Amino acid sequence: MSQVLVASNRGPVSFSLSGDGTLTMRRGGGGLVSGLAAVTGGPAQADGRRSGAAQDGPEALWVCAALGDGDREAARRAPDGRLDLDGHDIGGAAVRMLDIPAATFHRAYNAVANATLWFVHHLLYDTPSMPHFDARSRRDWQSYEAYNAAFADALARDAAAGAKAAIQDYHLSLAPRMLRDRRPDLKIAHFSHTPWAPPEYYRLLPDDLGERVLDGILGADHAGFLAERWAQAFLDCCALLPGAKVDRVAGTVTRGGHVTTVGVHGLGIDGDALRRRAAEPDVAARLEALRAQVGDRRLIVRVDRTELSKNIVRGLAAYRELLVNHPEWRGRVVHLVFAYPSRYDLPEYREYTEAVREAAARITEEFGTPGWNPLILQVNDDFPRSLAAYRMADVLLVNPIRDGMNLVAKEAPVVSDNGCALVLSREAGAAAELADHALLVNPYDVSQTAEAIHRALLMPREECAARREGLAAAATALPPRQWFADQLAALD
Amino acid sequence: MSQVLVASNRGPVSFSLSGDGTLTMRRGGGGLVSGLAAVTGGPAQADGRRSGAAQDGPEALWVCAALGDGDREAARRAPDGRLDLDGHDIGGAAVRMLDIPAATFHRAYNAVANATLWFVHHLLYDTPSMPHFDARSRRDWQSYEAYNAAFADALARDAAAGAKAAIQDYHLSLAPRMLRDRRPDLKIAHFSHTPWAPPEYYRLLPDDLGERVLDGILGADHAGFLAERWAQAFLDCCALLPGAKVDRVAGTVTRGGHVTTVGVHGLGIDGDALRRRAAEPDVAARLEALRAQVGDRRLIVRVDRTELSKNIVRGLAAYRELLVNHPEWRGRVVHLVFAYPSRYDLPEYREYTEAVREAAARITEEFGTPGWNPLILQVNDDFPRSLAAYRMADVLLVNPIRDGMNLVAKEAPVVSDNGCALVLSREAGAAAELADHALLVNPYDVSQTAEAIHRALLMPREECAARREGLAAAATALPPRQWFADQLAALD
Repeated sequence: MSQVLVASNRGPVSFSLSGDGTLTMRRGGGGLVSGLAAVTGGPAQADGRRSGAAQDGPEALWVCAALGDGDREAARRAPDGRLDLDGHDIGGAAVRMLDIPAATFHRAYNAVANATLWFVHHLLYDTPSMPHFDARSRRDWQSYEAYNAAFADALARDAAAGAKAAIQDYHLSLAPRMLRDRRPDLKIAHFSHTPWAPPEYYRLLPDDLGERVLDGILGADHAGFLAERWAQAFLDCCALLPGAKVDRVAGTVTRGGHVTTVGVHGLGIDGDALRRRAAEPDVAARLEALRAQVGDRRLIVRVDRTELSKNIVRGLAAYRELLVNHPEWRGRVVHLVFAYPSRYDLPEYREYTEAVREAAARITEEFGTPGWNPLILQVNDDFPRSLAAYRMADVLLVNPIRDGMNLVAKEAPVVSDNGCALVLSREAGAAAELADHALLVNPYDVSQTAEAIHRALLMPREECAARREGLAAAATALPPRQWFADQLAALD
Repeated sequence: MSQVLVASNRGPVSFSLSGDGTLTMRRGGGGLVSGLAAVTGGPAQADGRRSGAAQDGPEALWVCAALGDGDREAARRAPDGRLDLDGHDIGGAAVRMLDIPAATFHRAYNAVANATLWFVHHLLYDTPSMPHFDARSRRDWQSYEAYNAAFADALARDAAAGAKAAIQDYHLSLAPRMLRDRRPDLKIAHFSHTPWAPPEYYRLLPDDLGERVLDGILGADHAGFLAERWAQAFLDCCALLPGAKVDRVAGTVTRGGHVTTVGVHGLGIDGDALRRRAAEPDVAARLEALRAQVGDRRLIVRVDRTELSKNIVRGLAAYRELLVNHPEWRGRVVHLVFAYPSRYDLPEYREYTEAVREAAARITEEFGTPGWNPLILQVNDDFPRSLAAYRMADVLLVNPIRDGMNLVAKEAPVVSDNGCALVLSREAGAAAELADHALLVNPYDVSQTAEAIHRALLMPREECAARREGLAAAATALPPRQWFADQLAALD
């Protein structure tokens, strides 16, 4: 295979800058790192130190944005723009961090990607007042174009002839077209990790910007999605794009003589790696601490970023309705709510975080007794603690109003100690793969969600174990290496 | 033709109750009255006093809800339930007002029809927090069922064998099925005056309730919509309904052996009647008053209920952007904003009304001078004044985020004195009929709307007059009598 390039907003490493000017590197996780490692033959899940073993895969380069001061400093110190990873190897890839001006980055990332495209694809707008596209939106959009162009420039400069480029997500929807314009010899894939909006909602975007996003992705040879539903919605939007011809049977969009294939590549869990991680001592320590808090009560767990789409407030309302309608659970159940900070730059997220806090406090106040705390809310991110909660959970609640995939729903069943029942929103991409073994709910239907939790708590141990088996099998059926290899294979 | 029955929440008359117990009747207007009159041969636009002339059409009965204390009293005094209309005749129809218990009515009308179905079809929800279906929603739904059953009962009781029933709008989506169950001999039509939600948004409804609404309308032999787009969305939703078979070419839905045809019946203006009304003295008086306020400045007019879907706040923002980007208009233009009270029972509407007031006040404060008031906001409903504004307007702004049809966009061009340019949202059903002669805008795109107003103000007088001609012709092409006759004809 020829050279492989990856482009994504967040890269596989980040740097922190200490007072004396020292840069400390931290590796991130995620499916892309292990997916890329499997393609290149480089290390993935270990500490990443170069083993000296021959790499049998293609050369790889990962282009990402510098996200903080440490990243920016690291990017500036790299003489040719490629980071010195101090002997570390990221899935076999070299890394180039783009030092995009902070104001440009802020507008592209927050105003366009997160406050516009994310909102459109997740149907999050309070439409009577938002979105509101005005002169400022146009300026934000120019930054989004500049941000995408920076990626296209970097990819175009470093790509070998005929290389494959895998461009990731809604931050980079214009980059495929920009890269094709610069380097028509490349094979370009784009992958959307979000849902895709139906045409009637996609129309909220200003006409020209909506067209630019579609046209941008159609600059790729292949456009990938996490679920059939999102791929179909993308085709539906393309069918309304001037000059585009959609073939739903073949799954192609033809525009300006160029054909883009559209495919579905589900993303699952690397089961072995996750089970190993969940068996580490730091997880065991947290397991012990949680057991001390929960005692022998039944445990309902949720683990989310505090993201508008994750539907934490309605989840809490469902828990409240459970305690009202089925008072027999009072004193016998604990709801563990992990709600990690997210996108605090956007006012909607700060307000939502406050709404979560208030809803949780009201439940504690209404139902708590000296001997029983009905709800534990934790807002600091602690992955080993999440794994401990997964292992202990009797019920896992995953109720997003809309979600590209949702990996929490796939992680918990894989590491569960005693089997856990999954209450899952039908609006998560994962629902298509897990439907047979989960209790599906309409995320807007609080009563239905409460009844599903009740049913999950009552589920016989054997049924619970059998469902856990089925969920874990489905969750690990499409590990990251296959997901990423499929994106590249679709370019052949 | 056999007997015709009409069912709608609001009837053609209303009663007020004075302190001494006297009931005073007021006739309402609307397309249904004149549509029905044309079918029955009864009077429509006159004072409705029975002329003694033979009615050559079928017998007609109009079933509606008692909406206030006067209506309820009138319904109670009617010995057989049929109102004594004191010699008046409503489009040739007798009227039966249903005295539905106030709490039932409130929940059916406000909580389900207006705060749920209306929100779904107009995409109005602030999805991270609303809708929120819980135990209370179920109780509200039971009231909606009872409300629909009251209509079905009344229709079933009074319908002659083989009669035609024309059931109107989202308040009565269950009534067609309920009526068919009671009287399979009848021919039943349902007509939606709203848009219809795309399936991805319709799914917000609890599964069983969403199915009940579709199943309710599919109890009709014919389901009518104002625009092709809404009919298609209905078919799209039906395609996901268990047991339903959709034939898009024929425009039919088959379920349980019963076939429902789906059709589009645009609703326009009775041009002659409206022109006559606009020439009356009360309109002339208001015209004079408005001229004194506006002087020789250019006039931008909007006329709306203060309804979340009407997009008044973004319209004001567009006017502001016009004054910022094109300061040459300052002092030379006035924006007349008629925003009538609507649905004050719902907190969202009270907040929206306040937001309109604030946005208007900010513009006056920012741009107003001692000699120029840039904006006049009127919140009291005054139809003759609206007609006067239509006659004077240089630009009519109609920018709803979503609208079944929008008759304001059709009324103004018909009565305009000097031609008026129409800035029209592409999300209004009327856009399909008026597109050739209007300036279409994306209602979320404030900048585009501002530029369209600018262009409208600059439109040469001849182009303006020519467009007015085209708009008036399109607006009157489908008068209410044809619209209503088509609904009935679709049952043959």
